[in-house]
Amino acid sequence: MSENKENFIGFSLLADQLQRKTVKKGFEFTLMVVGESGLGKSTLVNSLFLTDLYSNRKLPPVSERLTKTTDIEKTKLEIEENGVKLRLTIVDTPGFGDGLEGADAWQACLKYVNDQLGLYFQSENSVNRKNMTDSRVHCCLYFLSPYGHGLRPLDIEFLKRLQYKVNLVPVIAKADSLTKTELAAKKKRIMAEIAEHGIELYQFPDTDSDEDEDFKAENERLKSGIPFAVVGANTTLQVGNKTVRGRQYPWGIVDIEDTNHSDFMHLKRFLIQTHMQDLKDVTHDVHYENFRIACLQELKAAGIEQPADITKSTERLDETYEDPEKILLLQQKDEEIRRMQEMLNSMQQKISKS
Amino acid sequence: MSENKENFIGFSLLADQLQRKTVKKGFEFTLMVVGESGLGKSTLVNSLFLTDLYSNRKLPPVSERLTKTTDIEKTKLEIEENGVKLRLTIVDTPGFGDGLEGADAWQACLKYVNDQLGLYFQSENSVNRKNMTDSRVHCCLYFLSPYGHGLRPLDIEFLKRLQYKVNLVPVIAKADSLTKTELAAKKKRIMAEIAEHGIELYQFPDTDSDEDEDFKAENERLKSGIPFAVVGANTTLQVGNKTVRGRQYPWGIVDIEDTNHSDFMHLKRFLIQTHMQDLKDVTHDVHYENFRIACLQELKAAGIEQPADITKSTERLDETYEDPEKILLLQQKDEEIRRMQEMLNSMQQKISKS
Repeated sequence: MSENKENFIGFSLLADQLQRKTVKKGFEFTLMVVGESGLGKSTLVNSLFLTDLYSNRKLPPVSERLTKTTDIEKTKLEIEENGVKLRLTIVDTPGFGDGLEGADAWQACLKYVNDQLGLYFQSENSVNRKNMTDSRVHCCLYFLSPYGHGLRPLDIEFLKRLQYKVNLVPVIAKADSLTKTELAAKKKRIMAEIAEHGIELYQFPDTDSDEDEDFKAENERLKSGIPFAVVGANTTLQVGNKTVRGRQYPWGIVDIEDTNHSDFMHLKRFLIQTHMQDLKDVTHDVHYENFRIACLQELKAAGIEQPADITKSTERLDETYEDPEKILLLQQKDEEIRRMQEMLNSMQQKISKS
Repeated sequence: MSENKENFIGFSLLADQLQRKTVKKGFEFTLMVVGESGLGKSTLVNSLFLTDLYSNRKLPPVSERLTKTTDIEKTKLEIEENGVKLRLTIVDTPGFGDGLEGADAWQACLKYVNDQLGLYFQSENSVNRKNMTDSRVHCCLYFLSPYGHGLRPLDIEFLKRLQYKVNLVPVIAKADSLTKTELAAKKKRIMAEIAEHGIELYQFPDTDSDEDEDFKAENERLKSGIPFAVVGANTTLQVGNKTVRGRQYPWGIVDIEDTNHSDFMHLKRFLIQTHMQDLKDVTHDVHYENFRIACLQELKAAGIEQPADITKSTERLDETYEDPEKILLLQQKDEEIRRMQEMLNSMQQKISKS
């Protein structure tokens, strides 16, 4: 950066000023992982963030899992790397698709996503906006089973229900059970079915022509990798003089960080290193704005039509999101009506007496 | 930045992701310069941003200046440096303190500042928030005359009126007419008077103990320089084999970029290179939030008390900032009142007939 005295104004340092401030404040990110038990959601999250989020976890016996509905399990952790702090929230849905609830498994997830949007709407419109936190779900990793052919009805239902609410990123779980050929066919079929059902996944940002070539190429490469075929591993293995995070089979070792073995590193690159901020921005600029506009419209429609799904999460809003002037006017009108009612009553008495 | 494969998660790249995005979007900054004519406001702005903003300017004759009130003159320019784009707005007040309006000279400035806060409040609460622009005044450079003793009543009035609305940064204009001793005494007196009148200038951010020492030292040095004693110059002079931006006197050359001659470089450093983002943040987090809360309270109070100053800029808000549900309720109540009025009328007719 040239700081030639003659021609240097210095506002280009704004970018550094902003970076210093945001790094100081830290970042927030909420990731939701959805998919039936046993697809390796927890292992993948642990592999991505190099933590052990679920050390205290107890799996309920099958008898319980048959009847229970989808739970929401929230884990928060603060991690720091090179001076950058991240407050990460992992939203897990341990019971998803487990019970006999069938197609309604998406409801708990949709409610959670909606509730967080509603909470943000509330705090944005409240008087005190200091210490606003953002619990909105910035990305939903949807785990597809490596077995079966293409999408199941539950997958389609879930993706359709959540598509305009959250950034959907499908992944093929336990991809080490598929050969290269099988995987290619599966990816192709899944994307065709997603297109066929008009499901909108997270849209990668358009790159401008003035963007640098490396960035454009990587954006394209990651985009074409969807659905990422992933393998998770909590264990590290010694291969020669190298330590790898992987899975040992009798026929060889799956190194999850080897891009020839799985898309794990592509997912990690995409989710954390290149597109995390865009996931946050799309959540705010697209999903939250859609929610906000829908809220305003629902509030308008309330009283005329039967309130739709969305008001479930806006019910609470009415308590806090209020225009003080309008409330006062309403009170005045109520008072006026009360007075007129009294006049009417006394007149009616007069009439009946006369 | 270490990208050690074993332990690198990569969310520290979030800071770079954010920087890339904000640089791409560009920055907005609005600077207001206030002070009586002839104190070198335009020259200083030109010197700061290395432009010629006022090439088409015509000064009105004195006869006009006697009667006219304070004008607001807005100049916008887009400048780019090292790939960083800045949309800069300079708000000038050419007639300030010129006419016979006396102590009311601040009104046009206050109205302008309030109106911009109001516009932002409007757009924040409107349905469509795409392409929101920020015309809020992020900093007000207030030019103090180098002559006279300390602050004049007009200065005190202005600073008091605007202190909770905008980041106030006083500067001593044309400081090349003061000796080092005079300047030191003047600075001391001005700061004492500002304290005495309880005027709140822009507050430099507190530096945390974990901040690096250079940053802390510079923050302190700039803070202690207030009010910056400045000299502007549109001309460059040849001094030996060096080109300097300065003013040629018979007794020597004032090099405005020499920190031994004036605080110009400190002002430039502060305003543009180190604290521009903080000026934007304080505008948003403090001044705008205060305005927003006051708006909400005024809206509440409207109808009971005489609306105060602030509602002038919130009048317009009522057209766009509306809770649809409440409006509907109000309409229903109006309808109810109308029906009752009709009943009352018909009853009164009955009574008078009987």
